[in-house]
Amino acid sequence: MSTPIVETEIADQPAVVERLLREQEDPIRALADRLRARPPQSILIAARGSSDNAGRYAQHVFGLLCGLPVALATPSLLTLYHTPVRLQNTLVIGISQSGASPDIRAVIEDARRQQQPTVVITNNTDSPLAQLADTVIDLGAGPERSIAATKSYTSSLAAIAALAVALRDDAQLARELRAIPDAMAAQLDRDGAVGTAETWDRCMVAGRGAQYATAWESALKIKELSGIAAEPHSPADLLHGPIAVVGPKHPLLTIATTGPAFDGALEVVGAARDRGAPVLAITDRTSEARAAGADVLVVERVPDWLSPLVAIIPAQRLAVHVALQRGIDVDRPFGLSKVTETT
Amino acid sequence: MSTPIVETEIADQPAVVERLLREQEDPIRALADRLRARPPQSILIAARGSSDNAGRYAQHVFGLLCGLPVALATPSLLTLYHTPVRLQNTLVIGISQSGASPDIRAVIEDARRQQQPTVVITNNTDSPLAQLADTVIDLGAGPERSIAATKSYTSSLAAIAALAVALRDDAQLARELRAIPDAMAAQLDRDGAVGTAETWDRCMVAGRGAQYATAWESALKIKELSGIAAEPHSPADLLHGPIAVVGPKHPLLTIATTGPAFDGALEVVGAARDRGAPVLAITDRTSEARAAGADVLVVERVPDWLSPLVAIIPAQRLAVHVALQRGIDVDRPFGLSKVTETT
Repeated sequence: MSTPIVETEIADQPAVVERLLREQEDPIRALADRLRARPPQSILIAARGSSDNAGRYAQHVFGLLCGLPVALATPSLLTLYHTPVRLQNTLVIGISQSGASPDIRAVIEDARRQQQPTVVITNNTDSPLAQLADTVIDLGAGPERSIAATKSYTSSLAAIAALAVALRDDAQLARELRAIPDAMAAQLDRDGAVGTAETWDRCMVAGRGAQYATAWESALKIKELSGIAAEPHSPADLLHGPIAVVGPKHPLLTIATTGPAFDGALEVVGAARDRGAPVLAITDRTSEARAAGADVLVVERVPDWLSPLVAIIPAQRLAVHVALQRGIDVDRPFGLSKVTETT
Repeated sequence: MSTPIVETEIADQPAVVERLLREQEDPIRALADRLRARPPQSILIAARGSSDNAGRYAQHVFGLLCGLPVALATPSLLTLYHTPVRLQNTLVIGISQSGASPDIRAVIEDARRQQQPTVVITNNTDSPLAQLADTVIDLGAGPERSIAATKSYTSSLAAIAALAVALRDDAQLARELRAIPDAMAAQLDRDGAVGTAETWDRCMVAGRGAQYATAWESALKIKELSGIAAEPHSPADLLHGPIAVVGPKHPLLTIATTGPAFDGALEVVGAARDRGAPVLAITDRTSEARAAGADVLVVERVPDWLSPLVAIIPAQRLAVHVALQRGIDVDRPFGLSKVTETT
């Protein structure tokens, strides 16, 4: 059997991110200069699927580094209810790998009507969506031929991180970001074994802070590729009720990397183990995770704010691995189509 | 076996909502008058669990009726990262049945420091959270003794709807809202049979627009009470990937009520049926839902913007029914605790 395309695309990620950081540095800096001249009060993000998970990262990182409140748009208000919300001093960012989503386009069109600054982050700069925006950030991920987005997701994260750093204008953070492609490459050099996850047929996924996005994207990859149920939650929300489903047949995957959210991501390991659930932790603190009762997938230690760029890699590989074990055509799983033209 | 408390609390909902609309009319009108004198540019909502699902309804209804952008807060930025985002002209609303969540309190405290108007919607007006707010809306649901929130959820929806109507100052909408307790009572008079759902051991839940909140809250009740996996999505997001898990062993519950989101909620019925999945629709358009291949739970027809107050009732009863079939103590399922003091 030939190597699945998705594995090649996963392996491409360090090079794609490195290229994005290099080739988009000037347009991102120019955008940040314009925004600093007339600072937005808030950010609105319109995206779907993996791009929406990149939006969850944006919510964290623009808040953390720039003090900006970030809302995720509800396109249905525009496309179904034809009721725009009033925007003032709002930077509106559309994220779409294909640039083909009519609902994302509707949000950007509305932002233009309301004379708000617009940015589109896309892998298709010729798309109708890209034509609309004041500024386009080209993901430059090359053709993504597998149905499941991988390199366009991490490239979106890098674009968001680069814009946040440019807005903050911080040389140390910029150095940390430039070191990320090497950490991603080191991650790919690690063993991709997934242990007992091979036998899972459902799971919960936990992550918070920077890794909230990783929990969502991990769950989406697992669902899309392997067809097993995988629901993301922050540890805080998980303990508020959904923990009820966790048990011997319903394992937990937790993203527990060094940073302010580590303790919470470890706490749920204990809660899940108390219910008899197998737990797998994507972690850079293996002995603590093992002591709490988790099996581990080791992740490179990087600064917390950048950890989603690295921690998603073992989750992507886990999703592929579980799918292959189940005999699934991972490049065309379940008749999914690459572009879903939802309105 | 005696009647479970949660069934009594579900049955109490029309009376609780009627009381809220009556007793909180004056404080809500006074709040709306103050806000109209100095209109907020946006709303930020802090909540967890069922209250967060009420926040999803707020996102829809304040956008639809008041043109206000609504963001759901990320308390981790405050409680874990100690980094407040800058708020300007933002109405900050905390929703907490118990008033005991430290993370919701942190968001309200920060809003006060930033001199933003604050509202707390709570069932415990003596709570520390309630003490902090400029305005308190008392859910007046009486003690909620079952672990799973039911009457405090619908009472929160009613409080949000009442505030949106008062801000919009629309007599016709106010009349529609006042008619809702009767529609809820009529819903409770309907047969609560759930058909084949008794045998489910996992499901996906779809809903959009007004019913996006219902999809989330239905999924949460099903998880909390019955311990079966239940993941909520908008139909648009579902088709972007998560539909992959839907199949013969993974049914779909869709909230398909009359309104702009109906077509999308019906479209996913076809997509799920194509994958061989059983589908149950909570709907007021039974012949269309049946023609698409769904079994139906009939819901009273009410104005779309208020439909979440009625459509959640069959979902609550479905969750209880499935749990009882599985021999679960529905008032104390899975060792969950009523107040989760997450930070």
